[in-house]
Amino acid sequence: MRMVLCLLVLVLGTPLVSDSRGQSAQERSRPVNPVVSGRWSLIADFYGTSVNFSLKLNQDGDKLTGIFRGSPLEGSLQGNAISFVVNGEQGDTVECRGAIRDNTISGTLLFANTNDPGPATTVPFSATLVPQRNPVIPQKHEFVPTAFYRDFSAARKPALTVSPGDTIHTTTIDAGGTDENGVVRVLGGNPETGPFYVETAEPGDTLVVHLTRLRLNRSWAISDDLVVSRGLDNNLAVKMKDVGKPVRWHLDAQRGVATLEKPGEHLARYSVPLRPMLGCVAVAPPNPVAAPATGDSGVWGGNMDFNEIIEGATVFLPINVPGALLYIGDGHAAQGDGELNGNALETSMDVEFTVEVISEKHLMGPRVESATEIMAMGLGGSLDDAFRTATASMAQWLNEDYKLTPSEVAEVLGTSAEYKVSEVADRNAGIVLKINKIRLQALAPGVK
Amino acid sequence: MRMVLCLLVLVLGTPLVSDSRGQSAQERSRPVNPVVSGRWSLIADFYGTSVNFSLKLNQDGDKLTGIFRGSPLEGSLQGNAISFVVNGEQGDTVECRGAIRDNTISGTLLFANTNDPGPATTVPFSATLVPQRNPVIPQKHEFVPTAFYRDFSAARKPALTVSPGDTIHTTTIDAGGTDENGVVRVLGGNPETGPFYVETAEPGDTLVVHLTRLRLNRSWAISDDLVVSRGLDNNLAVKMKDVGKPVRWHLDAQRGVATLEKPGEHLARYSVPLRPMLGCVAVAPPNPVAAPATGDSGVWGGNMDFNEIIEGATVFLPINVPGALLYIGDGHAAQGDGELNGNALETSMDVEFTVEVISEKHLMGPRVESATEIMAMGLGGSLDDAFRTATASMAQWLNEDYKLTPSEVAEVLGTSAEYKVSEVADRNAGIVLKINKIRLQALAPGVK
Amino acid sequence: MRMVLCLLVLVLGTPLVSDSRGQSAQERSRPVNPVVSGRWSLIADFYGTSVNFSLKLNQDGDKLTGIFRGSPLEGSLQGNAISFVVNGEQGDTVECRGAIRDNTISGTLLFANTNDPGPATTVPFSATLVPQRNPVIPQKHEFVPTAFYRDFSAARKPALTVSPGDTIHTTTIDAGGTDENGVVRVLGGNPETGPFYVETAEPGDTLVVHLTRLRLNRSWAISDDLVVSRGLDNNLAVKMKDVGKPVRWHLDAQRGVATLEKPGEHLARYSVPLRPMLGCVAVAPPNPVAAPATGDSGVWGGNMDFNEIIEGATVFLPINVPGALLYIGDGHAAQGDGELNGNALETSMDVEFTVEVISEKHLMGPRVESATEIMAMGLGGSLDDAFRTATASMAQWLNEDYKLTPSEVAEVLGTSAEYKVSEVADRNAGIVLKINKIRLQALAPGVK
Amino acid sequence: MRMVLCLLVLVLGTPLVSDSRGQSAQERSRPVNPVVSGRWSLIADFYGTSVNFSLKLNQDGDKLTGIFRGSPLEGSLQGNAISFVVNGEQGDTVECRGAIRDNTISGTLLFANTNDPGPATTVPFSATLVPQRNPVIPQKHEFVPTAFYRDFSAARKPALTVSPGDTIHTTTIDAGGTDENGVVRVLGGNPETGPFYVETAEPGDTLVVHLTRLRLNRSWAISDDLVVSRGLDNNLAVKMKDVGKPVRWHLDAQRGVATLEKPGEHLARYSVPLRPMLGCVAVAPPNPVAAPATGDSGVWGGNMDFNEIIEGATVFLPINVPGALLYIGDGHAAQGDGELNGNALETSMDVEFTVEVISEKHLMGPRVESATEIMAMGLGGSLDDAFRTATASMAQWLNEDYKLTPSEVAEVLGTSAEYKVSEVADRNAGIVLKINKIRLQALAPGVK
Repeated sequence: MRMVLCLLVLVLGTPLVSDSRGQSAQERSRPVNPVVSGRWSLIADFYGTSVNFSLKLNQDGDKLTGIFRGSPLEGSLQGNAISFVVNGEQGDTVECRGAIRDNTISGTLLFANTNDPGPATTVPFSATLVPQRNPVIPQKHEFVPTAFYRDFSAARKPALTVSPGDTIHTTTIDAGGTDENGVVRVLGGNPETGPFYVETAEPGDTLVVHLTRLRLNRSWAISDDLVVSRGLDNNLAVKMKDVGKPVRWHLDAQRGVATLEKPGEHLARYSVPLRPMLGCVAVAPPNPVAAPATGDSGVWGGNMDFNEIIEGATVFLPINVPGALLYIGDGHAAQGDGELNGNALETSMDVEFTVEVISEKHLMGPRVESATEIMAMGLGGSLDDAFRTATASMAQWLNEDYKLTPSEVAEVLGTSAEYKVSEVADRNAGIVLKINKIRLQALAPGVK
Repeated sequence: MRMVLCLLVLVLGTPLVSDSRGQSAQERSRPVNPVVSGRWSLIADFYGTSVNFSLKLNQDGDKLTGIFRGSPLEGSLQGNAISFVVNGEQGDTVECRGAIRDNTISGTLLFANTNDPGPATTVPFSATLVPQRNPVIPQKHEFVPTAFYRDFSAARKPALTVSPGDTIHTTTIDAGGTDENGVVRVLGGNPETGPFYVETAEPGDTLVVHLTRLRLNRSWAISDDLVVSRGLDNNLAVKMKDVGKPVRWHLDAQRGVATLEKPGEHLARYSVPLRPMLGCVAVAPPNPVAAPATGDSGVWGGNMDFNEIIEGATVFLPINVPGALLYIGDGHAAQGDGELNGNALETSMDVEFTVEVISEKHLMGPRVESATEIMAMGLGGSLDDAFRTATASMAQWLNEDYKLTPSEVAEVLGTSAEYKVSEVADRNAGIVLKINKIRLQALAPGVK
Repeated sequence: MRMVLCLLVLVLGTPLVSDSRGQSAQERSRPVNPVVSGRWSLIADFYGTSVNFSLKLNQDGDKLTGIFRGSPLEGSLQGNAISFVVNGEQGDTVECRGAIRDNTISGTLLFANTNDPGPATTVPFSATLVPQRNPVIPQKHEFVPTAFYRDFSAARKPALTVSPGDTIHTTTIDAGGTDENGVVRVLGGNPETGPFYVETAEPGDTLVVHLTRLRLNRSWAISDDLVVSRGLDNNLAVKMKDVGKPVRWHLDAQRGVATLEKPGEHLARYSVPLRPMLGCVAVAPPNPVAAPATGDSGVWGGNMDFNEIIEGATVFLPINVPGALLYIGDGHAAQGDGELNGNALETSMDVEFTVEVISEKHLMGPRVESATEIMAMGLGGSLDDAFRTATASMAQWLNEDYKLTPSEVAEVLGTSAEYKVSEVADRNAGIVLKINKIRLQALAPGVK
Repeated sequence: MRMVLCLLVLVLGTPLVSDSRGQSAQERSRPVNPVVSGRWSLIADFYGTSVNFSLKLNQDGDKLTGIFRGSPLEGSLQGNAISFVVNGEQGDTVECRGAIRDNTISGTLLFANTNDPGPATTVPFSATLVPQRNPVIPQKHEFVPTAFYRDFSAARKPALTVSPGDTIHTTTIDAGGTDENGVVRVLGGNPETGPFYVETAEPGDTLVVHLTRLRLNRSWAISDDLVVSRGLDNNLAVKMKDVGKPVRWHLDAQRGVATLEKPGEHLARYSVPLRPMLGCVAVAPPNPVAAPATGDSGVWGGNMDFNEIIEGATVFLPINVPGALLYIGDGHAAQGDGELNGNALETSMDVEFTVEVISEKHLMGPRVESATEIMAMGLGGSLDDAFRTATASMAQWLNEDYKLTPSEVAEVLGTSAEYKVSEVADRNAGIVLKINKIRLQALAPGVK
């Protein structure tokens, strides 16, 4: 079986209906007790497994409208009794019955499908009001990590809780687990700093991570001299059969270059410009799924190994669990496209970033923005799959943010798309579709 | 960074040298205290993460030979002080220093690389002697599962411990978490029965699972009516855009067929023969890696969804951790190749199987054997990758078990290979290379 | 630029609208001169390049209806002046103006697009009435080839003209150009016997080739001992780096087996059953395209190397040019799936087949039918593309011939699909989706 | 069968041995009649099919050394009788026997294989001395095309014969067959200008095409508004199901931009910079293969649709037939990566280029060089195959021209590779690996 059975696939994987309607119910003047309108963080207990859902309620007298996991709902409020129904696609329905007390809604969700003669699934839930965003001045946090994690778990206790707008200054250790002092802190495999819990972040939102500082904090990196299998045809595989040893690079921050510590005879004068980047930026994946290893990637980001995630860049990721749970790690002093050696110039890093949350904006995958370009990443089991996904993700971006029709999307992509191979060293291959912002200026929202 | 840094990649991922030598040291008559010769289960502590290694020692006076994770070692025994060195490929070395007391070796492992000027990695370990296989009569176990798991964790406490040769009779629930009585036991997603700990199984061994019984234990299955994305070209994607509802099938064990409970008009008389299979058979993956979800697959098996894993078939999997930790689940009453609907005819199952362990035999991926065929499975991010892997895995089989040269392997594959698509619904695609045993009779070991 | 510019893409590549309507105009009693109703073979001259189109006209008084390249037309007949218009998708239009004399229509076609402000394309054409199928008794032809061709050209003069229902008995030489007497007749590369012109066959029809006899006519075959690159992962590429020599097989028609003439030591007793097949069965591709080499394949068939194209099988191919122009060649005495050695057991062959034409039935790719199975082949640049195409092609089959809805198609494929890798040695990879006819008996047209 | 049978595969497809030795035989003082030392253009007649081979002979008294199709030869000259033998890999041998008269060698080639008990292949040949490169001043040719070709045929009569160093000024028509005056000259599908025969060019050499001028010569281009299937995932396929109409762009050479003639409402102010490029640059493929259509590509170049083939760029292609037979066409006023609309901004072009020949340098595929970058193109049936090929081709470049070892190649690629998707609209996908020349300065031949 593919993933999660039948009805639950829809519950957990996709909105019940694909387009959203009727969210604009206006609120009347007469205030009502209790407070129901707003965004709720809902956790349901599926036979022992906690599953998060996004819920937005708009109250108008005793009528309720809103959005449950991306699909419109209709219901009523009678005293403190609350009920609503969601009618989704393919016959899926959700009925909620609960009661509100002390700013918490408790009750049951009943998942059914009109095509399925079998019994419905009824699970208990409780929901708490998502706090309004803190209007106070953004804070800056100094965070000294003491533990580093080797999976992107949604179940991990946050290392630090921050608010949207806050800035965090911290460090990452290298992919092998060694810190800026050369001390091994943990077994290798991209151990991560974090996770950071971002207040008000809920499933269905987008996390924004703006990298304000990304600097080297030691003078060496480790890599190796192989070419990963995705880069080898049969002849090159034979030629490369005897390579694969560890290689150390000297990082000269003054001159801004990296050089091999023990170069072969033809590379004695070879150097590459330092261009520090983060291999890993991730939010926690949807919680019912087992935690991925920190070598993996997905629509939630992860080990993307994309060499445009540098100082000044902004990363956008679709949030799956309350607080988003942001992980960062795997700094590279420099990296060619695709991380062809398996290891880039792996090193520890001094990192500062600002987080932001965009409410109720759902991305189909990671996006990156630089001063000059917008970039949509596709990740998949082959470059061909990654290419399709990158194209579809950018099409979503142009459609949703620039209001382009399918025909207009095609015309812009056909004339302005730039594709780059971001990653070939991991289980997922990555391709990034970039568009120069100059091309989009005439399309910008607000421009007439 | 790809996975695990530099030196540890080699430690954890591959033998230090690829061919094994010098295992045949003969033992002298004079017995020595303590007992050192034999197989050891070694656990090292890498900065808080436990990593299992296989170790085999042969003592000849004060000289030690043997195998450490597939590579030959040389060392000595002085009183209870034990030491050995492994010289691997690409300059990798391992030095072990320890002492043996009470049938336990404790000490340190030092991992270094002659090409790497950086500091070596030193980690503590302890090792215990793997018990000799129990010569007593194989037992049969009745196991009634009370918990079901949604990841293939290597860290989970075994549900039952058995010996090689033992037979286990148990049940599995369906992929959606529903048991034979229609009771939902756990959230869906291929929840598994197990894990079963198999005595004497060590990393580097092969687990053999012979399915002696695989029977339906309820009269219905659930599926759906979509085609997964790997099966859709652009035109078919448009045609299939409105399907995807749950579908129930009636299972008639008497007549041996499944029929749709609410068929469309053209399928009123359509039926498919029942052919019960297990979608999931897995051993725990290597422990330093995060536990994969039960929708995933790998060289360790998992959610293979291969419709030849039926009653009578034998599954072979490469063992990664002591005890192997066998998981089973995801029964299908019937399934076309590839599990094209995402869900096959998902149902609960009555299962009986016998386990066996082949010592020091390392497979590169799952194998299946029926009465008539040998089958090597390739799993990968694309069908093309899976195809390459299936071919390479069968080449390994023909080379190691039938001693064929590369030229002979090519000649046999070119004339006798049969390829089948096993799975397209999951993250990994699967292709199986089958060879009819009749073709191999003239090659059988021992035949002249 | 991809292929053929703008408007002409639609003209040459696809029907102007995708569904056909209005073909059922009934004919009145009053006969009219000249004869217009019927199927016409139309050739237009595009600036020196001849392009074939299918045309069907139904006359009702002075009104004309019909089909032009799959799209409905409307027009009129005034004396011998004929005119019609086709309104296609995306604004494409075709206007025809001509005159009928001596059973030939001559005139111009004007291709335009309402979205394109540029000038329309006007080209001259002439059309002749396709003869009615000959009602006489089918004939059997003995054809002794004297020339063999190394491309699938649409421009080649037919070697023999036959009628639907006729049977041809002939021979093919081996892929290297050597005949049944060991005489080299032509440079290797799958030289073909044919082409055979089949009367009444027009673009948009389907050619049916039923192989009534496929027998060996010499006692040896040639192959080699490599594995093609699609079958090699990096490790196997290294192991296989020194193989690739020619290998001869002895074909023992009496015992029905092939054995190596100079086997390696482990294959001294290895044999494979003879199972003669044709590697190439092709119709000429659409004529404006350059003629593909006889190592290539496409929706028009070609070098499919599918080991179910054996005696008793029926091959269905979509016709592109008048007469279909059937080519056959590349006999294999036996072949494993995928033709993994690049060469199968290449040999000359004694072949007999019967041809048939199904009017106005357009297949999206090759189909094969045996006594027990229907099979749809997908060909593409990767196995993943081939898989998608095979699935879509079988979906077309089930929809058009068995009237299944998309939901029903999914249910049948999910439970009855069997996928086989047909070819990995050529530029196109091939995957075949097979369904056992027993599964389809309850769906057969006419069954209630 | 894959391509060309057994022995001939090796003859036609690859050098008999892969590394070349023994070419440095020094010439003695005593002159000998006739002149044998030099490069010869050899044509053999394989049963009616002409096949070109490269041959280089060095005479030293009565001893001959040299290179036959990349493999070393040894032989003798007795009077005017000439003979030599080539011993290749896998047992392949070639024996040449001939006589030299009037600067022509005539005789037979005997191809055999020591593993093949079958009869050898003996074919007649004749060879003529390749003229020395003309030392005179390079010429400039004005070429006004009167015919345009829709395949890359090796059999076509040259339109113009030029010498290495010469410059040709000419025009190309657009992919649809329309010229700078809006006159349709030929059916669409990338009709080509040429072919140009370049004196002294022989199989095994490299053709260099330096684009000195590439300018628009009309004010409009035609494109369309679809996204090709390689760019569509299932959801985007559904969204894009109704697009695909022709679209005209206005080309404003003064302002240097293209704008839509009838833009949708959101693209009213959208413009793209003009960046004229050639979609097609090709040499004739190996002559025994059928001529590919001008929509296809291969190691010989062709319809590469790479948007860095602009004014100032240099294209390198491996030569297959005497004279190279250069074709150019398919100008684009601008194109995003991959030619995502199937058609870029298709237009006619004013082109000037200089040709050069590098003797006895064999490339594994197309290369492009700009003022700042070297670029190796991979073409294949999938992006994954194209990626492997691009990487292997650049590895060849770094190894042969910069003498890097496999380890050094890996280190340079890992730190300096930039990958771009060049083409997704055609049968072959394309990926280009670029390296900035600054990275290579320290490696340049001659630099110490």
